[in-house]
Amino acid sequence: MSLLRSYVSGRWHVPDADGAPLHDAVTGEEIARISSAGVDMGAALSWGREVGGPALRELTFHQRAQLLKALGLHLKEHKDELYALSYRTGATKADTWIDVDGGIGVLLGYASKAKRELPNDTVYVDGALEPLGRGGTFVGQHICTPLRGVAVQINAFNFPMWGPLEKFAPAFIAGVPSLIKPASQTAYVTEKLVELMLASGLLPDGSLQLVSGSAGDLLDHLTAQDLVGFTGSASTAQHLRTHQAVIRSSVRFNAEADSLNCSILGPDAVAGTPEFDLFVNQLVSEMTTKAGQKCTAIRRALVPASLIDEVAEATSAKLGGIVIGNPANRDVKMGALAGLEQREEVRRSLKALLESASVVYGSDEVTVVDADAERGAFMSPMLLRAASDAVQPHEVEAFGPVSTLLPYNSVDDAIALAARGAGSLVGSVVTGDASFARDVVLGVAPWHGRVLVLDREDAAESTGHGSPLPMLVHGGPGRAGGGEEMGGMRGVLHHMQRTAVQGSPRVLSAVTNRWVTGAPRTTEDVHPFRKTLETLRLGDTVVAGPRTVTLEDIEHFAEFTGDTFYAHMDEEAAAANPFFGGRVAHGYLVVSFAAGLFVSPEPGPVLANYGLENLRFVTPTFPGDELTVTLTVKQITPREDQEYGEVRWDADVANQKGESVARYDVLTLVAKR
Amino acid sequence: MSLLRSYVSGRWHVPDADGAPLHDAVTGEEIARISSAGVDMGAALSWGREVGGPALRELTFHQRAQLLKALGLHLKEHKDELYALSYRTGATKADTWIDVDGGIGVLLGYASKAKRELPNDTVYVDGALEPLGRGGTFVGQHICTPLRGVAVQINAFNFPMWGPLEKFAPAFIAGVPSLIKPASQTAYVTEKLVELMLASGLLPDGSLQLVSGSAGDLLDHLTAQDLVGFTGSASTAQHLRTHQAVIRSSVRFNAEADSLNCSILGPDAVAGTPEFDLFVNQLVSEMTTKAGQKCTAIRRALVPASLIDEVAEATSAKLGGIVIGNPANRDVKMGALAGLEQREEVRRSLKALLESASVVYGSDEVTVVDADAERGAFMSPMLLRAASDAVQPHEVEAFGPVSTLLPYNSVDDAIALAARGAGSLVGSVVTGDASFARDVVLGVAPWHGRVLVLDREDAAESTGHGSPLPMLVHGGPGRAGGGEEMGGMRGVLHHMQRTAVQGSPRVLSAVTNRWVTGAPRTTEDVHPFRKTLETLRLGDTVVAGPRTVTLEDIEHFAEFTGDTFYAHMDEEAAAANPFFGGRVAHGYLVVSFAAGLFVSPEPGPVLANYGLENLRFVTPTFPGDELTVTLTVKQITPREDQEYGEVRWDADVANQKGESVARYDVLTLVAKR
Repeated sequence: MSLLRSYVSGRWHVPDADGAPLHDAVTGEEIARISSAGVDMGAALSWGREVGGPALRELTFHQRAQLLKALGLHLKEHKDELYALSYRTGATKADTWIDVDGGIGVLLGYASKAKRELPNDTVYVDGALEPLGRGGTFVGQHICTPLRGVAVQINAFNFPMWGPLEKFAPAFIAGVPSLIKPASQTAYVTEKLVELMLASGLLPDGSLQLVSGSAGDLLDHLTAQDLVGFTGSASTAQHLRTHQAVIRSSVRFNAEADSLNCSILGPDAVAGTPEFDLFVNQLVSEMTTKAGQKCTAIRRALVPASLIDEVAEATSAKLGGIVIGNPANRDVKMGALAGLEQREEVRRSLKALLESASVVYGSDEVTVVDADAERGAFMSPMLLRAASDAVQPHEVEAFGPVSTLLPYNSVDDAIALAARGAGSLVGSVVTGDASFARDVVLGVAPWHGRVLVLDREDAAESTGHGSPLPMLVHGGPGRAGGGEEMGGMRGVLHHMQRTAVQGSPRVLSAVTNRWVTGAPRTTEDVHPFRKTLETLRLGDTVVAGPRTVTLEDIEHFAEFTGDTFYAHMDEEAAAANPFFGGRVAHGYLVVSFAAGLFVSPEPGPVLANYGLENLRFVTPTFPGDELTVTLTVKQITPREDQEYGEVRWDADVANQKGESVARYDVLTLVAKR
Repeated sequence: MSLLRSYVSGRWHVPDADGAPLHDAVTGEEIARISSAGVDMGAALSWGREVGGPALRELTFHQRAQLLKALGLHLKEHKDELYALSYRTGATKADTWIDVDGGIGVLLGYASKAKRELPNDTVYVDGALEPLGRGGTFVGQHICTPLRGVAVQINAFNFPMWGPLEKFAPAFIAGVPSLIKPASQTAYVTEKLVELMLASGLLPDGSLQLVSGSAGDLLDHLTAQDLVGFTGSASTAQHLRTHQAVIRSSVRFNAEADSLNCSILGPDAVAGTPEFDLFVNQLVSEMTTKAGQKCTAIRRALVPASLIDEVAEATSAKLGGIVIGNPANRDVKMGALAGLEQREEVRRSLKALLESASVVYGSDEVTVVDADAERGAFMSPMLLRAASDAVQPHEVEAFGPVSTLLPYNSVDDAIALAARGAGSLVGSVVTGDASFARDVVLGVAPWHGRVLVLDREDAAESTGHGSPLPMLVHGGPGRAGGGEEMGGMRGVLHHMQRTAVQGSPRVLSAVTNRWVTGAPRTTEDVHPFRKTLETLRLGDTVVAGPRTVTLEDIEHFAEFTGDTFYAHMDEEAAAANPFFGGRVAHGYLVVSFAAGLFVSPEPGPVLANYGLENLRFVTPTFPGDELTVTLTVKQITPREDQEYGEVRWDADVANQKGESVARYDVLTLVAKR
């Protein structure tokens, strides 16, 4: 029988002991044995900190993103091997698609978002520059730098691929090494995944480690720079969160735990409307996908009291059509639970729920296709129904194909029932009424990490109630663990320390690799438009002008463009305007003249002006004013996969009194060579 | 003897018991007695949740900001009463300025920042809209809504005014009621502060409560929507953080605890340089301000080995000039510690430090002015010196006028020593060398919440090592508690739940009060420039055009503005450009023509175009292209204190093929009536 290995301190480790058996969820057959015996947990963490961290921090965000993309494409090529193993966990092909393709999607999503939203640098600049003194010599800027520890990622059994990948991707982009500890039941899938990831040869040594089996004394070795990301039960989360090493060093601890997610049907969505059908279909899908073993599945279906009979009937009818059995059989729509123990646990929870609920659909018996109902962890979907004052539906999470219908009587009632979940990962509202949607969303938002509004307009593109997405936060308050994962770059920043840096503009520019107002400028003979990306330097500046703006210019521009707004054309009306006191030049004229002044027209490395940001017209420009523009290189972002990069310029247009009249950033593409 | 009161459930509560005595730090005389006996903690929390929260949530961010500003101005008028009490805590006038004026500064800072950075609304929109499908019918947006609980604020004794105010301000802006529990020693100052705040009549009922004395069973009543903000010792933080109610409900717990802050002198800053003097002066100031009772004070002074003798000498000379005594006497530069118990604790820590350090300056004896050295909690500043391999300086925080000099030999050495603090609130680097500053800042950043770089350029405006500022984060990893307070709007968002909302553009617009691409547009006969702020609606739209851009237009614009960039003027060179393939119109020409199309020129409610944001030139415009512009009301922000407000318009310029050529936001000021 094969023994699952760990990958720690730069090599594969075969356990020193026989380990515990892992069983096929469908056949009951033993698949492998698991044990972490002999793994030196302290050494693994040190290896991550001392080998993985430094190697990752050598790379820029964009370089890490490139590796992540390549890794995603590598896994895509090998996903058949993962599918084959996944069926043994009880997952159907559709279930596995969420796990494998969903996980690869997180890698690719993070790669492309990191390239778009992060600098090609090792330091993240967070928020705006904060002026800290009137004279401009003392300024503040928040930066984020990678924590110098290891991200310990403790995953649940239900998504042995998506789970590790959704934690790994943001850590990797941040520059923090990962140590993955999968739940035992399905760890053979994660072991294969990690093997494929390592075999890609893309990952810097130490940036990815795997502990198969018990965590042992892993947490004892945590220090202040490490993090823990946990997905699993609330009771385990509470246990780990109060671990003395976590508490002693204020270790960042992110939990994603129990969640009694609700789905709310709008009163407008009566039988016959598209929203009624969407609600029922989604409920059935959430009950049966992964045999209901999703932290995000709908556990509480809140339905207007007047519609509950129809919903019960329609949902039961749909559930009756769900073929259960061997997930490798393509007629099967719902596979097995992860194992017989999981099924026992679900049955215990079901029993608790039945204290206040009755069965609408489902039974102890289950008919299965292409499998043995005795040996496999199969069960029938169970739709329950309870009164709105029942307690258990808001407290007991049956982690299987189990959901409870509850009636509500008003918007406030629905919101109050949703809140009784005491904190959930996700809620959904199915309604065509935008005003009802607004009331419910804002009412339940404090209790939810994500809320989906489903209607006929978005249904075709909706990814559904149960699907966390890499660009949206995943997590929830209270019972759901109080954590937050992914959410695009938020998940990356979770692995970094935010630090407020105070200093002179010169020093802030040096620290952030961005030119900051007040920092030295370099004005050379050569126009910066004549310099390639590789020779341009922060602070390179061209000062051009002055150019006088005449009344004729204003009138000509008005006539030419058609912008004859009274503030430019009508002295009397302009004088009555609270801000101008007389005719002023168009803002568009000011920036057009400024470009005329700073541009260096001949072909050269500057390829295009692709945009403008944060333009503010600070002081009006009056006829006769003389404009001077100062254009300074503010940020340089070479693109890893192109022959050019982005250059952000600080533009400051001033009048003859030295007052700024317009300030903005000019965005250009500049050739590297 | 007076009994300190609590303010809970809408009224002042006089304790049912005699309580513990509080003593004047200078004279030892009893000032008041304190007890929370008889306070119903559960009822107080319910009152906050059920009365305070709803009242605050009725207000927009701007309305809360207005109240906060008025509150700050009200306290300013009454600050003499607070100064008088503050002297009794041992604080000098300069110390009290930090506490009172600093605290009022936080209120005013939050008020003005909230008006600038938050919408005049009750929902905060966090980050960009996330497209979730190709067709544009399914989009995501993160929103933040106030938690529905109470912010329990447990403060330290050293800043009885600034401490509560820096926690109250962001909670109030967020719309979350505060319950303040001051440390007993100086609670008489906080009681006075709260009395003044309530007497202002500005605060909605339930938005501010005070518990004087022990917290009793307060934490037992916490639920998932409450928060705890704690400032104090690491051991108490650990105790509270593992409280079963905190753990059970994943209560947000923010701690600001022990911190062995370092200050690093650069090797360039030899004696005789301005930086050398700045370092010494700052060290003396941090040791003696508040008699060193600041979580942000410098505990470890890291100095190049070659400079340590000179630093020791210069610092000792300065310390010798510090007059100690009655803080009400204006010659006095350093007052008393908060009490005799505090002094005992400092002496104990000092003893531990002396296991590996020797005394450079200071003694057991202290000469005081205008006070009794026996009755008051006075002590001499103590400057110590230790070898760089000493253990205690990195582990023992003597919370008084005590600091240790430590030598270092290289940049890496300095960074490693800084990190031995295991997480600090603040570090400073004093150097004129920007490259050294960069290396140190990036090296120590993962262990710090704030880093100050001090040099001759920013010294005149620097607020100093020890001063947290409302616009910068305050907190630190590891030993410092792992928390983050203030940091401008970050501190507000800490009191809110972030929720990813998914839905159709129509629904997202309804939820966020912002028009979103794809949401319905309203095109009426009346041009939206003719509508006042009060009658304008999200989605109001003008579509204008088409206008053909001719080659003559391009050449004319080039000649008129001077922008003769080759991509506009030279067919052959433009054809060789990787993006264009031929001559294209200026981006500035496109937006100028667009304005000419959408503007409604006659005087009316639109007062000014004050800026442009996120302009992107998406597709080149070629000669002969026909441009149409669609301008849609995206966001409306009435100003509370003006007769106008801001209107953000979505501008989309498309060509004859329907392709967007430019997209941007136009920012205007529009009269309310």
